[in-house]
Amino acid sequence: MSKRMGRRTVRLEHPPVLSGWAAVVGKKEGEGPLKNGFDQILEDSYFGEQSWEKAESRLLRQSFTLACDKAGCPPSELDYILSGDLLNQCISSAFAMRESAVPYFGLYGACSTMAEGLSLGAMLIDGGFAGRLCAVTGSHFCSAERQYRFPLEYGGVRPPSAQWTVTGAGAVILAKNGRGPRITHVTTGVITDAGIDDPNNMGAAMAPAAHATLTAHFAETGRSFADYDAVFTGDLGALGHDILQSLLEKDGFDTGVKLMDCGVLIYDRKTQGVNSGGSGCGCSASVLAGHILPAMEKGIWKRVLFAATGALMSPTSAQQGQSIPGICHAAVIENEV
Amino acid sequence: MSKRMGRRTVRLEHPPVLSGWAAVVGKKEGEGPLKNGFDQILEDSYFGEQSWEKAESRLLRQSFTLACDKAGCPPSELDYILSGDLLNQCISSAFAMRESAVPYFGLYGACSTMAEGLSLGAMLIDGGFAGRLCAVTGSHFCSAERQYRFPLEYGGVRPPSAQWTVTGAGAVILAKNGRGPRITHVTTGVITDAGIDDPNNMGAAMAPAAHATLTAHFAETGRSFADYDAVFTGDLGALGHDILQSLLEKDGFDTGVKLMDCGVLIYDRKTQGVNSGGSGCGCSASVLAGHILPAMEKGIWKRVLFAATGALMSPTSAQQGQSIPGICHAAVIENEV
Repeated sequence: MSKRMGRRTVRLEHPPVLSGWAAVVGKKEGEGPLKNGFDQILEDSYFGEQSWEKAESRLLRQSFTLACDKAGCPPSELDYILSGDLLNQCISSAFAMRESAVPYFGLYGACSTMAEGLSLGAMLIDGGFAGRLCAVTGSHFCSAERQYRFPLEYGGVRPPSAQWTVTGAGAVILAKNGRGPRITHVTTGVITDAGIDDPNNMGAAMAPAAHATLTAHFAETGRSFADYDAVFTGDLGALGHDILQSLLEKDGFDTGVKLMDCGVLIYDRKTQGVNSGGSGCGCSASVLAGHILPAMEKGIWKRVLFAATGALMSPTSAQQGQSIPGICHAAVIENEV
Repeated sequence: MSKRMGRRTVRLEHPPVLSGWAAVVGKKEGEGPLKNGFDQILEDSYFGEQSWEKAESRLLRQSFTLACDKAGCPPSELDYILSGDLLNQCISSAFAMRESAVPYFGLYGACSTMAEGLSLGAMLIDGGFAGRLCAVTGSHFCSAERQYRFPLEYGGVRPPSAQWTVTGAGAVILAKNGRGPRITHVTTGVITDAGIDDPNNMGAAMAPAAHATLTAHFAETGRSFADYDAVFTGDLGALGHDILQSLLEKDGFDTGVKLMDCGVLIYDRKTQGVNSGGSGCGCSASVLAGHILPAMEKGIWKRVLFAATGALMSPTSAQQGQSIPGICHAAVIENEV
């Protein structure tokens, strides 16, 4: 099939446009190195709601509303919403979009959800099934902590390999027509399990998935790091980033300074006490909408590979002794020439 | 856009073929009215595994393997797997497909997952992005009970409106070419919340979503019940089915005997003690693969509307007093003429 460039990569014939985007983040993220790119920074971790789960949901809704505004697209003109999150049964997405009245596809890609949404969304538009749609996801440190780990009040000590769940959300409007950076290729992740079973070391669990997707992407497109201005992984954190880098170097790739990780970029690890870096669906989503796309708009980068990573485990699977399967979905984003 | 027939319905230009399918169910489902259609009936609720979660995962994998076999399609030739389930973080899907090496899109549509997978899958094939793919989902009574309700040992009494989570899985192979029934249209669900907040009455919570999708489908296609041999909702159960029927009759639709519900069909409610009927991702998936598609193959039905329903809530959202949002995704399945 002509659109397929191999087992995992698809080339889009009419690359969809990213016509609007927004990132809304929490206080800590708003004090980090990327603070100037975010659309809104919250002071209140409850975002005026009664629970952190409701706050997380409102984060998604707020980024969605802002992205629609910036794209000049009322929600009533969207053909689809593609959304998912980390909460059990993806409630922050469903409740965020409950009143949207837009046809809705729920996704579960863990922290890779933004790339999964962009991938499916780009194909829906290129295939002629939609004119405009929204990919949106987010996460919240407090709701994630109590669901995955301990009540915050317990004050559990975090090992150095642990990551800090980003409080934040990102939304992107994809459109058939318009101006803006475009998605030209998507490379879909294969579930990859290297046998890591430490839920406090997600970076190590996800790095092999990122490695599998990046090497497949390069092999199937005939490209390499030289063809990109920057390659962003989702949320490997410092530890996972180092593992990925050595895996790629072993393959002979010269990653140089082009390989970056959203989980490393979003916090200042020296001063912000986040151990290995950021994670969560909101990590790559808010870095994409608050850092990568604004920089592309300014012409700083022209062609970027966005490769968000996810760990497809749960507390139950960890308790049952299962190792942690990872996945990494990638999309090429390119300024119009 | 020519493929779109309105806000929610898409007409497929080259309707993908359902070239193989399989249903694997538990003992109770194998004693019900549809027992003769299932490919495999398990005697052991653990399916030889150490936990119910692992058994659920194996159910999905087994239905996937059988469907690939019946379609004559080795997994290595599949372009995508679309899968999701009810367990937290969709672990039964991820672990089932961990060794598949097939590009994987994780979905969360609660009990509507089979219809969501068929919808996205049909568009991916019609759009030229895939030649063959698999939509698969399932559920397990024991893993769902302990996650959503009480430990089984507690022996909680179930109210009459409660439904029984199906132990079962269904998988369908969709292909660009070949022989078999085809997906001609998909109507995508909008999240619909009628304010029902009783997690023991999912049927009532989901019926308004089914009503919204069916009426949108009929309005956008210019069709009605007269144009279908049968219309199947996902898992409303007897109570939800009655609510949907009266909502449709109020609109002037003559549902006749054509409106059926997978949750009503799968058990004998008089003798099997399932209260309002079946539910779970495995309900509509196993009824589709074990009853609807085999009957279409025999020519009993020629054109069917398959409208699986899902409740997008979690125990946490219920505990926080949130009402239950529902969704219903529909696909038209039609024998070749």
